[in-house]
Amino acid sequence: MMSNDAWQNAREMYARDNCAQALGIDIIDMDDGVAVLTMTVTPLMLNGHQTCHGGQLFSLADTAFAYACNSQGLPAVAAGCSIDFFRPALAGDKLTATAHVRHQGRQTGVYDIEIINQQANVVALFRGRAHRLQAR
Amino acid sequence: MMSNDAWQNAREMYARDNCAQALGIDIIDMDDGVAVLTMTVTPLMLNGHQTCHGGQLFSLADTAFAYACNSQGLPAVAAGCSIDFFRPALAGDKLTATAHVRHQGRQTGVYDIEIINQQANVVALFRGRAHRLQAR
Amino acid sequence: MMSNDAWQNAREMYARDNCAQALGIDIIDMDDGVAVLTMTVTPLMLNGHQTCHGGQLFSLADTAFAYACNSQGLPAVAAGCSIDFFRPALAGDKLTATAHVRHQGRQTGVYDIEIINQQANVVALFRGRAHRLQAR
Amino acid sequence: MMSNDAWQNAREMYARDNCAQALGIDIIDMDDGVAVLTMTVTPLMLNGHQTCHGGQLFSLADTAFAYACNSQGLPAVAAGCSIDFFRPALAGDKLTATAHVRHQGRQTGVYDIEIINQQANVVALFRGRAHRLQAR
Repeated sequence: MMSNDAWQNAREMYARDNCAQALGIDIIDMDDGVAVLTMTVTPLMLNGHQTCHGGQLFSLADTAFAYACNSQGLPAVAAGCSIDFFRPALAGDKLTATAHVRHQGRQTGVYDIEIINQQANVVALFRGRAHRLQAR
Repeated sequence: MMSNDAWQNAREMYARDNCAQALGIDIIDMDDGVAVLTMTVTPLMLNGHQTCHGGQLFSLADTAFAYACNSQGLPAVAAGCSIDFFRPALAGDKLTATAHVRHQGRQTGVYDIEIINQQANVVALFRGRAHRLQAR
Repeated sequence: MMSNDAWQNAREMYARDNCAQALGIDIIDMDDGVAVLTMTVTPLMLNGHQTCHGGQLFSLADTAFAYACNSQGLPAVAAGCSIDFFRPALAGDKLTATAHVRHQGRQTGVYDIEIINQQANVVALFRGRAHRLQAR
Repeated sequence: MMSNDAWQNAREMYARDNCAQALGIDIIDMDDGVAVLTMTVTPLMLNGHQTCHGGQLFSLADTAFAYACNSQGLPAVAAGCSIDFFRPALAGDKLTATAHVRHQGRQTGVYDIEIINQQANVVALFRGRAHRLQAR
């Protein structure tokens, strides 16, 4: 189901989201409780092992999380997150982060984000807990 | 106990750590299993709520984690991390991240990182699991 | 796809799993990387708030995790777990825990477990990291 | 600093805590935001590998967490927890769980719990997020 509201919320967030823009993150798909974003790993994102810095992978997942948990139009912020890393990302890799709501209560929600590379191999799994600023 | 080796490992890592340099992160103290880093929140680090992006706070904590878990001179990478956010960080805030080893086995270690602001209020708590590339 | 091996591994584990038996846990479905278990909340499982103790919910999820990550016939143990609680479980509630593999590498795997009650409301979400005792 | 209130709250909780009593958990020390509990591993707590079930270790840590986050006299429940396992516990091992508050806000708190065995080796590290039922 296409969600025009989810897309509209995402466009408004993106317009003022300097970080997402600076990282070259693109929004590919939006729906209620869902966000799909892409980012290409650049040489500036590499650490001393010549693999993408965990902070950059976290930022991609965290951004997908933010767009998904704000997709219903009620402002929400991250209360906490966890991430597990499985496979390094290299310069030139095109990463896709898909965020899905797993549970959304009146005030608290949990969202799962999966980052895969261009070969559909899992790079990282992220779980975020969101807290709505006002309860519905 | 002062650890010259921990400092030397940290200096070598920092020299090739573009991310830490780009974020303006400074190393304040190093010891075996310990790292203390600072970062000042700049306007470019803000999200749409005008507070420091979670990805930037994660990157500061993750960097302190990396320096602490590599302080013994055996290369280690992050296997997974969790972070809890308590208080927003604002533009101009000077943040200090202190990393301490909680457990270091032959191959796996757990490190706790606390981020405080210039008023010593806790901004975030981070826990990282490290995996040594070769077992000792 | 029905997996006879997954069922056979589960039956062998259950025969020597005093805890699962003591909690009244039943195995409902098994497949490669999948396990579905049920448990009914008894008065002995209640804490002072008259709701099911978190440790009992954890044990149910952890058991589903163990059966799923051992379903392929390679012995694996839990390296770490996280659980988020959403809704209390009360005496008489019939809980169902469904475990799915999210990622299984040569040595490390991540499994997601969802506990729902008899009204299909989410009680808790659990994520477990498994470590195989011998790499394949 | 001795805290008579923390002890009194703990005694009242313990009187109606069937689970803690059934596990043979003893309270060794209490203070504001602190709880120290012990438990001896019995044969009934073993899994098929003849090591203490993760659910039992979780229950010990979770109980220490509950006593610490309720020590100030304001009812609080667990919102979520994570646990990392380092070393198996065997039958006869005497485990000590020490819970310390890491952050306590108006409504949300984070507590760290360490489980060690009789040789002072770390068995598991647990981190719990508590949610107060009424904000102060």
